Parts: sequence; C-alpha cells; structure tokens
Amino acid sequence: MPQNVRIALDAMGGDHGAAVVVEGANISLERHPDTEFVMIGSRPTLEPLLADRPALRAVARIVHTDVAVKMDDKPSQALRRGRWKSSMWMAIDAVKKADADVAISAGNTGALMAMAKFHLKTMVGIDRPAIAALWPTLRGESIVLDVGATIGADARHLVDLAMMGGAMARVLFDLERPTVGLLNIGVEEVKGLEEVREAGLILRQAARSDLDYVGFVEGDDIGKGTVDVVVTEGFAGNIALKTAEGTAKQLAEYLRSAMNRTLSARIGFLFARKAFAAVRDKMDPRKVNGGVFLGLNGLVIKSHGAADAEGFAAAIDLGYDMVRYKLRARISEMLGQHADE
Amino acid sequence: MPQNVRIALDAMGGDHGAAVVVEGANISLERHPDTEFVMIGSRPTLEPLLADRPALRAVARIVHTDVAVKMDDKPSQALRRGRWKSSMWMAIDAVKKADADVAISAGNTGALMAMAKFHLKTMVGIDRPAIAALWPTLRGESIVLDVGATIGADARHLVDLAMMGGAMARVLFDLERPTVGLLNIGVEEVKGLEEVREAGLILRQAARSDLDYVGFVEGDDIGKGTVDVVVTEGFAGNIALKTAEGTAKQLAEYLRSAMNRTLSARIGFLFARKAFAAVRDKMDPRKVNGGVFLGLNGLVIKSHGAADAEGFAAAIDLGYDMVRYKLRARISEMLGQHADE
Repeated sequence: MPQNVRIALDAMGGDHGAAVVVEGANISLERHPDTEFVMIGSRPTLEPLLADRPALRAVARIVHTDVAVKMDDKPSQALRRGRWKSSMWMAIDAVKKADADVAISAGNTGALMAMAKFHLKTMVGIDRPAIAALWPTLRGESIVLDVGATIGADARHLVDLAMMGGAMARVLFDLERPTVGLLNIGVEEVKGLEEVREAGLILRQAARSDLDYVGFVEGDDIGKGTVDVVVTEGFAGNIALKTAEGTAKQLAEYLRSAMNRTLSARIGFLFARKAFAAVRDKMDPRKVNGGVFLGLNGLVIKSHGAADAEGFAAAIDLGYDMVRYKLRARISEMLGQHADE
Repeated sequence: MPQNVRIALDAMGGDHGAAVVVEGANISLERHPDTEFVMIGSRPTLEPLLADRPALRAVARIVHTDVAVKMDDKPSQALRRGRWKSSMWMAIDAVKKADADVAISAGNTGALMAMAKFHLKTMVGIDRPAIAALWPTLRGESIVLDVGATIGADARHLVDLAMMGGAMARVLFDLERPTVGLLNIGVEEVKGLEEVREAGLILRQAARSDLDYVGFVEGDDIGKGTVDVVVTEGFAGNIALKTAEGTAKQLAEYLRSAMNRTLSARIGFLFARKAFAAVRDKMDPRKVNGGVFLGLNGLVIKSHGAADAEGFAAAIDLGYDMVRYKLRARISEMLGQHADE
C-alpha cells in the first residue's frame, strides 16, 4: 500500500478563497481517498467549512495564518511582505519541509512563481523554471510549456523544456515515447528564431528513446494535437494560451447570441442541448485547470484564480497524479540521461 | 472622378492558381467597378478564363510569364530564381514602376516578403516591414501586427508598428483616434519584455491626437476587441494568429461531430441551421483574408494560399480600400509627426 498523497493548499488564494478551496478538496478526495491535506489559512474561516464535511475533516490539518498575498501584489512585494507568514509561502514551505508532496494555490501567478523559485530553488541541471499547461485538442490533450514562467529562452532552455514536458507526458498520458514539437513560425522555410533552430538540431541529434522529436509545429498544430508536447518560450506560450482562451470565449459568445436570435434557433438549441453541453464540456477550462511548475525542487500547481470548486478540484487531481506517478523523479531521470550525453 | 484603382495580381500564386485569381477578381470588380487589373501569369491559361468574363476582360491586361515561385521555395531561393521573371516578382515590379497601385499574391509568404523588401525597400523612417492582419472580434474587427514579417522587435520598432497599425485603423475603420494596445503577459505586474515596457512609455508620453494608447493587453483581449490595434513582435503575433485559427477549427470540429451524434442533435441542427450559418459566417476566414505588408514603398497584400475565389476577392477588396483611402500617405503623415516629436 503506497503512502497517502499529502497536499498543501493555499486556502486564501484565488478570487473566491477558502470556500472554493475546501469544496474543491472535498470533490477531489472522493476521487482519491488516499489523500491528506494541509490547509493553510484563517482557522475561524476554515473550521466551519470543514465541520460540514466530516470525511474531509478527518484527513485535513489546518495551519493558521491571516496573511494573504493579494491578486495584484507585484512578485517582489509579495516576497517581501508575505515571506514566512502568508498562506502562499506556507504552502510552499510545507513542500520544502517535506510535510507535503505538492502545494496548490489559486493566487497570483507571479508571486507564486517568485516564492517557489526563491524557496525551493531550481533542480540540478535546470537554470530556469517553467509552467506547463494541459491543452484540450482534437486528439485528446497535449502539454504546452512554457506558458509564462520565463521570458526568452536559449536553445539549452528549450531542450530542458522538451525534457520536462516529455517527462510530464510520460507520467500523465502513460506514453513510452511522447511526440515533441518546437513551436515556430513557418514549417518549411528556414526562418524562426536562431535558438529554436539550434534546439531542433540538438533534439534531432539526441535521438532519444524516451521522446520522439518530430520537428517544428505552428500555432494551429496545438489545437489539432499534432504532438503530445509543444515546447516554446514563455512569452509566446502565454500569448498562445490566452489567445486560445479568448477565441474559445468569442465563439461561445457568437453561438449563444445566434441561438437566441430566432424562434427556430431556440427550438434547435433545445433539441441539440445535449450536444452543446458535450462541446462545452470538452472545452471546459475547469477540466484542464492547473499550471504545473516544472524544474523546481518541489511540486507546485497554480490553479486559475477564477476557478470554482470543480476547477480547483481538477488542479488538486493534477497535483495528485504528478505525485502518485513521480513526476519529479522522471524529470531527474530524463535530465540525467540528457546530461550524460 | 478619382482615378481607377490599378491592381496587379500574381495569377500563379496560391494552392489553386489562376482559376481562383480570375474569379476572385471578377467578384471584387462587381463590388468596385472603378478597378483595373494587371494579371501576371500564363497567357494560355488566363485567356480562356477571361473570355468567359467580358466585364473583367475589358479592364484586365495580361502580362505573360511561365515562371512561378513554388509554395515551398525558401525566400532566398525564390529571390535568386524568381527575380525579374516570376509572376510574383512581376506583380511587385508593377507597383515599383507605378503601373499598379497594389500587388496581391496568394503565394509563399516568405518569398513575397523577401521580394517586396528587396525591390520596394522600406519607407523613410521605417527599418523593418510588418504584416498586419484583420482579426474578427466580439466588437467587430481589430488589426493585429506584426503577424510574422520580422522576428524580434526593439521599442522603436514596436512604436513604428503602433503608428502603421494606427494609420491602417484610421483608414479601414474610419476612426479619428483608434485605440492601441501592446500585447504583453500580465497586465498589473511589472513583467514582460523590456522593449515592450519601453515602447509603452514612449507611446504614453507621446500623447498623440491621432491614436489612443491604452496600455498593455493580453492574448484574450484580441478576441474581445479590447483595442482597435494590437501591437506585437512578429514571432508572438504569428503564433497568436495561428493558434486562434487552430482553436476556431477545433471548436467547429467539436460542434460538427456533436451535432451528428444523435437524432435529437441532428434535428436541432436543422432548426438552428441559419444560426450556425451566421456564426460560421462571422468566423469565416475568407471574409477577413489578406495580410497587409506595411512599411514598404508600395502596397502588397498577401492572400491566404488556400483561399477560394471569395477569399481572394476579399484580399482584392482590402487592397482596393488601402489604395482608395491612401494608406501609405496616412502612414507617412503619422511617421512624419512621430519623427518631428
């Protein structure tokens, strides 16, 4: 019987705070009963929320603090004011002290990354951390990284991203040799950034048994699911992620308004409402919630700030999987092999 | 009575070649009878296509060549092999010689840009050209640039992009003072590229009467239509454009498959088919076809390679508007004012 997965929750992060965090934990616990929680936040707020949920209460420990990092704090401010005492810091600290296997927060991304980097430090062989996102595609799901941890990337960092993303795909999708592509502009032509080309050469020559480098991919390949892992520098990756979110919302809005415009459309909507629900479900950002911080000496997951309980539960599930299937050990293995080459 | 708009067409570019180009010209001519065409391509192919369209025949002049730039030619290859004699080069050359006001090609983007840059040269005050795209949004349409002409941008180039995009918005959307945003990651936090921050400061301090700089925008603001002009460096811009295309296709595919899965959904689809058609229409990439090359001594428009006649006609319409409303003169004015500051 393996050990329980121990999850530290920042119960003061996100737009909705403790209520969503506690209910999210409750939902995730039903799916993974072998979980324990450290909930960091205001005890007077958390106690009554837990009192209603005895199964969760039994596996949850409260660590009290009143200090929250604000959603609009700058990372440097958050680090200065929130170190040692904020719920965000203390969640990361639980991982640092090995009291928890993973920390999850719906708080301010920049502050969370700054604290995680400062406190956990990067893994041996990794200079800069990354944030990986799960992306729904026509084939299922892909991993896209970096979606905003680090701006700019040299060839070596892009290769590191390929290794970390590859390890994550092996763990999450249970693949022996996930396919990896480098995001670029123009597939046939000799164009694109010098560092992307150089990373392509390194990955091609490495001919690894644990990942299948397929070459350059373009923006429209992400949604097609052309590869399991899409590697890019953090600025372009963040733009891609947000642009896709924006486009999905725009289309949903067009549909909503078109389906309300005429009686015939409204009737059609009623007949097809299950089909619409299935599509909504497929694109539901709550189902794929959670940016995984990679390259640190400890696992940290960022939930979307606006996530509801179902969305926060998805972030917890993701953290559970990463721990259960030993993501960090897999990354170390791949980096070790990489370093030996 | 103003002069006719004279349009040079590369009749050998794109995936479909002359048939689409000729029919596209025919469609556009119905909308703008004050147009003349120079069609550059194989005379034996073009003559029979024009023979069926007497109104078009009356305003079209054929310039014969057999040499086409291939869709997969590298820009340097295309320039070496296709200079002076290819249909693409000759269309640009017609603009250079003032035989035409704008050149339109559905050929290979890299080759078209390389030839246009080489032959037309950049405008005084502009170091590097850009490609601007029209982007359908929840508010109507926005202009996004650069979507792939130039990789990397210093603050000055970003400011130039703002001027050129602003001039285009004034012309196309008939706005006195279009809103302009710089694409960045994270609005509140002090993060993002140094050059983006610096460009923001310059634009803020300029406090121009002909454009309204509103600050940073994120990827999801593009589809919302938060600003009339979204300014970004060409790598991220191209990734954003392709990612949005991919997401739109992905959602269309989800919908198509969901609407076919059950009888009830199929019935619903029948009732709502006009609503679906309206949404398809709104997102129809053919309606907003055409990347405008900005910053050169001459107008060049790139049509999507896969465009059908309706799509190619949209690119011609765009070229017509740019000429009729004197885009280049407007850009020069804005740059002049910019240089005087």
